[in-house]
Amino acid sequence: MKKKILVDMDGVLANVYLPLIEGQYTNKGMIKVIDDLNGIEEYKAFPDLKKIVSSNNFFYHAPLMEDAIEGLKYLNDKYDLLIVSAATEFPGCINDKQMWLQKYFPFISYKQMIFCGKKDSVMGDIMIDDHPKNLDYFKGHRILFTQPHNINLKNESYSRVDNWREVMQIL
Amino acid sequence: MKKKILVDMDGVLANVYLPLIEGQYTNKGMIKVIDDLNGIEEYKAFPDLKKIVSSNNFFYHAPLMEDAIEGLKYLNDKYDLLIVSAATEFPGCINDKQMWLQKYFPFISYKQMIFCGKKDSVMGDIMIDDHPKNLDYFKGHRILFTQPHNINLKNESYSRVDNWREVMQIL
Repeated sequence: MKKKILVDMDGVLANVYLPLIEGQYTNKGMIKVIDDLNGIEEYKAFPDLKKIVSSNNFFYHAPLMEDAIEGLKYLNDKYDLLIVSAATEFPGCINDKQMWLQKYFPFISYKQMIFCGKKDSVMGDIMIDDHPKNLDYFKGHRILFTQPHNINLKNESYSRVDNWREVMQIL
Repeated sequence: MKKKILVDMDGVLANVYLPLIEGQYTNKGMIKVIDDLNGIEEYKAFPDLKKIVSSNNFFYHAPLMEDAIEGLKYLNDKYDLLIVSAATEFPGCINDKQMWLQKYFPFISYKQMIFCGKKDSVMGDIMIDDHPKNLDYFKGHRILFTQPHNINLKNESYSRVDNWREVMQIL
């Protein structure tokens, strides 16, 4: 039986930093580079986060992380794969998230999607996520996907990957 | 620690038979009474089910099951409660489902909502559902909520409840 792997969306499949930077800073005539945001929690780095992600179909227009399609195909062949996205915090965004998945990952069935508020009730063997708040509740193999907010985090209970090439190397 | 209870939406909190009957039969000049549909799978009873639930914000306008608000309040006080709805089968409906929950059950937080394709990866101690396909994968206490499609089903691994009064009596 294949192992069950839970894969996060934002910050793992979807590059949310680029459109957040655009929404938060370019409108105010400022330009932030990613390095400025290293080690800073997303809600602090982007004080208008809730407003930004709740408008202009933010999640539907989010760009892909590099090699995410190839990486997810690889995992989908090898594992029992579920996409698990914390999505109910932003009411009205889930339809966009599902359409985004269907647009870029047509090989993922609707049966492989979970949109929730907290991930601690979802079972699996492996979890890939950029947020410690999700990984810390998980009993299986925890893989932290590097994003600016978690870049300084050291935790021996996680394996860290910087990109999808590394995901495919270790899994 | 409170036990975790998973509560289904359609056929448990939301009365979907009434608007399905309206969508399937009254448009064709026929009127079905609930008894005609006893023991018949939903997809057979409502051949246009997918089309009906995908239009006119079906899930947002679904009426409540009797005593559902009082029942869910009771469970929410006593248990660690999660709403778990198979929702991704009908793309575009999840926002409506979330708004429906917020409308009738404002005491339920976004953290207590899970919208998925299959429920077999969601952990809990008790599950209330009207579909054997969901209950059969569940390891805990299985409670079958009576709906016309399951009315003839006999399965000793389930407790059967006919309404929310009975839910409150046994839990």
